Amino acid sequence: MSISTPVPLSIPALECLYQTCQLTPKAVVSWIFEQVNQCDIKGTWTYLIPQNEVLAQAEKLEQLSAEARASMPLWGIPFSVKDCIDIADTPTSAGCPDFAYQAQHTNPAIAKLLAAGAILIGKTNLDQFATGLVGIRTGYDVPHNSFVKDYIPGGSSSGSAVSVAMGLVSFSIGTDTGGSGRVPAGLNNIVGLKPTRGLISKLNMVDACKTLDCVSVFALTAEDSLKVFQVAKGFNPEDPFSRREACPPAHLDFYQKGQTFRFGVPEKQYLNFFGNADVEVAFKKAVETLKSLGGECHEISYEPFLEANNLLFKGPWVAERYVSVGEFVEANPDSVFPITRDILLKAKDLLASDVFESLYKLAAIKRVVESLWDKIDVLVVPTTGTAYKISEVTENPIELNSNLGYYTNFVNLLDLAAISVPNGFQTNSLPTGVTMISQPFTEGYLVKLGSMFHRCRVEKLGATSFPI
Amino acid sequence: MSISTPVPLSIPALECLYQTCQLTPKAVVSWIFEQVNQCDIKGTWTYLIPQNEVLAQAEKLEQLSAEARASMPLWGIPFSVKDCIDIADTPTSAGCPDFAYQAQHTNPAIAKLLAAGAILIGKTNLDQFATGLVGIRTGYDVPHNSFVKDYIPGGSSSGSAVSVAMGLVSFSIGTDTGGSGRVPAGLNNIVGLKPTRGLISKLNMVDACKTLDCVSVFALTAEDSLKVFQVAKGFNPEDPFSRREACPPAHLDFYQKGQTFRFGVPEKQYLNFFGNADVEVAFKKAVETLKSLGGECHEISYEPFLEANNLLFKGPWVAERYVSVGEFVEANPDSVFPITRDILLKAKDLLASDVFESLYKLAAIKRVVESLWDKIDVLVVPTTGTAYKISEVTENPIELNSNLGYYTNFVNLLDLAAISVPNGFQTNSLPTGVTMISQPFTEGYLVKLGSMFHRCRVEKLGATSFPI
Repeated sequence: MSISTPVPLSIPALECLYQTCQLTPKAVVSWIFEQVNQCDIKGTWTYLIPQNEVLAQAEKLEQLSAEARASMPLWGIPFSVKDCIDIADTPTSAGCPDFAYQAQHTNPAIAKLLAAGAILIGKTNLDQFATGLVGIRTGYDVPHNSFVKDYIPGGSSSGSAVSVAMGLVSFSIGTDTGGSGRVPAGLNNIVGLKPTRGLISKLNMVDACKTLDCVSVFALTAEDSLKVFQVAKGFNPEDPFSRREACPPAHLDFYQKGQTFRFGVPEKQYLNFFGNADVEVAFKKAVETLKSLGGECHEISYEPFLEANNLLFKGPWVAERYVSVGEFVEANPDSVFPITRDILLKAKDLLASDVFESLYKLAAIKRVVESLWDKIDVLVVPTTGTAYKISEVTENPIELNSNLGYYTNFVNLLDLAAISVPNGFQTNSLPTGVTMISQPFTEGYLVKLGSMFHRCRVEKLGATSFPI
Repeated sequence: MSISTPVPLSIPALECLYQTCQLTPKAVVSWIFEQVNQCDIKGTWTYLIPQNEVLAQAEKLEQLSAEARASMPLWGIPFSVKDCIDIADTPTSAGCPDFAYQAQHTNPAIAKLLAAGAILIGKTNLDQFATGLVGIRTGYDVPHNSFVKDYIPGGSSSGSAVSVAMGLVSFSIGTDTGGSGRVPAGLNNIVGLKPTRGLISKLNMVDACKTLDCVSVFALTAEDSLKVFQVAKGFNPEDPFSRREACPPAHLDFYQKGQTFRFGVPEKQYLNFFGNADVEVAFKKAVETLKSLGGECHEISYEPFLEANNLLFKGPWVAERYVSVGEFVEANPDSVFPITRDILLKAKDLLASDVFESLYKLAAIKRVVESLWDKIDVLVVPTTGTAYKISEVTENPIELNSNLGYYTNFVNLLDLAAISVPNGFQTNSLPTGVTMISQPFTEGYLVKLGSMFHRCRVEKLGATSFPI
């Protein structure tokens, strides 16, 4: 079986084609490798699994009994993995070629996905050591936005988002410390689910900030991200940062069509679009859409979130990045992307007292945010206030990177769950995103609300021509 | 009404004397001040509330209606407070005369106790800035053990424990970071309840390690400590480290006489009595007593607890002490106890990366300890492995202090609850203690078990001649 027309890679579409025998995993794999080789998707991948191995894996899946297949929720679904997560016998580079090592172990979430029948295509590019929100701070080819090539893809999980948006895989596993699982989703018209910290094990990966990092899911739809999350999650006793899932507050169990809800948006003086009128208009439309879905809009102070943002990127958490890869950077300064090197080396001298003072501030901010959930069910913000050209970021790498985190940095520090969903386009065709944020363990609620919203705002999946 | 014979200060005894009109709060207060002025209890107090003010307070309580009295669970019960906790309009010294300031606010727990009718007698001495477990690192007179004067009282809440043991107050409010609420209880034949972190608000006090400190209760009996805890506890939204009480595991809700339970003791190679055969014998008797109460003894590895101990006193948490009082110490080096000054000033240069690496280690240790609660309900250890003379500690202040924390240091780091209860005497008449440790929110269980145990092991309350 070979394919000449594009294949829709949303999970239900692909499942339907498999079930009706219109497609086989091998055919899909062959088609994906054709696209990967043909498309101008420079910089998306850091490592592709050899095509013959992937085909052999697809063959294996095809040989399984109907019963075995039925027990595999992701049978034949192709995916990619951000290249800071270990998969045994493949290299992990963290976006730095000289850092690359052959992984000995497979991250438990990836192992679960493979066991569920998902087919790994390759490892994807990122801001080196997952440090950045632009997606272009890499030692490999620079990836670009899947819609407008002059623009950044967003990061740090840039390759993950692009591989999904381009319709080359059904989903991708990324990571998110200060927005890496949301920013590139927003800039590529796909969904980025950043679950509650610790629900997906992050054993066997290159840590960014070990106390904050989260494994995240990129997918074409919110439902797809939930399906992947449900396979990937699970308490892992070997992982000290793994957490047991808990019940969400009862009223945030699951959003249903027609249900009323209370959503918060930052008061006007806090909304910052960095001069981008298109994203501002798109966000206004998002608010109207949410109202049409049963939402009651509350303007809230964004002050505590800005304070948490400041703590993350001006505070001592960057020392965790030094703990993770500082030794390599010290020994191989020329192997490291210059901005990343500067950030990491500065972190070396931060003081223990800084950490504790920041933990005190964080505890106080958490107390304020805690009380916010009495007033609203979900906080809604633009995923990013604007988008930047690659050349703009190259010229002004620190400030523009920081601008991209205005609506994302605080989420893991405050132990919240979030989903970025597509929110329509700028006049220059670049996508915009909206992020819904709520208490830990509210993934089911966020996905349902995000899904309803997505269907109201956008017609096509990612950068493909397939309808949602 | 005046009193010539000693007054039993356990709460039910005093309540009974009040109810039967054999005593009044004013008479008790007068008697206490007589004792305080007569007894050789050098170094116990840093500040006494003026006697006329205390008498006026007792007078006020006596004037209340029967209904008002009945609503006050601690009506007429005298208490003391460790001098690192603020009470408005009284000085807080933290054991350092030059540091003393007139407090503007009252710690919320103290406010609750006062509102419940408890009568404050004074502030008690401590290891300066609550740094130490010996109780004699103070800028005031050196307090001594309530049984044998040559011996240390234990610390850091030395004055609190001595004031209770000597029968001068019914209870005392102390603090506990690495054992300060348990070590002096064990060395003075009284009960030290160190509740779950955050259940008693520590707003308005001189912090030691703000992320670990706990307000604790010293009392003559376990029931008394529970009664005081129940009044003092309460979520305080103004306190970022305050926590809401949660349910304990169902089987640890409440210990009942005759109930079987599983207790862990460190495997023999980990039991360390620092050469003290008397405490070793006492601990063996404790194990037998627990078996007679329905306990099934399990020997467990003490390795994870020793690792946590090392993290606390060799790791970066001491930087929190620098954050709290470092500025004062830098500006007033001659005002500070030399050992304390050295400890605090060394903490200044600790690195942020140390904190994060220690947090990673702690997370891994927590995971190990978590699984221990599948095997045992409660961990039982000596409160201290031995006791030291004041002169011994003066000669070898660091090592002997550290020895005293062998069974206490890890508890707050691992977020556990604990109670130290009397465990009989050494041949030299010094008391020994046993500490029961369990999961957070198990105060009710620990108190009931501790109370049963106490009654089996000791006949007299504190250093008084009153029977338990």
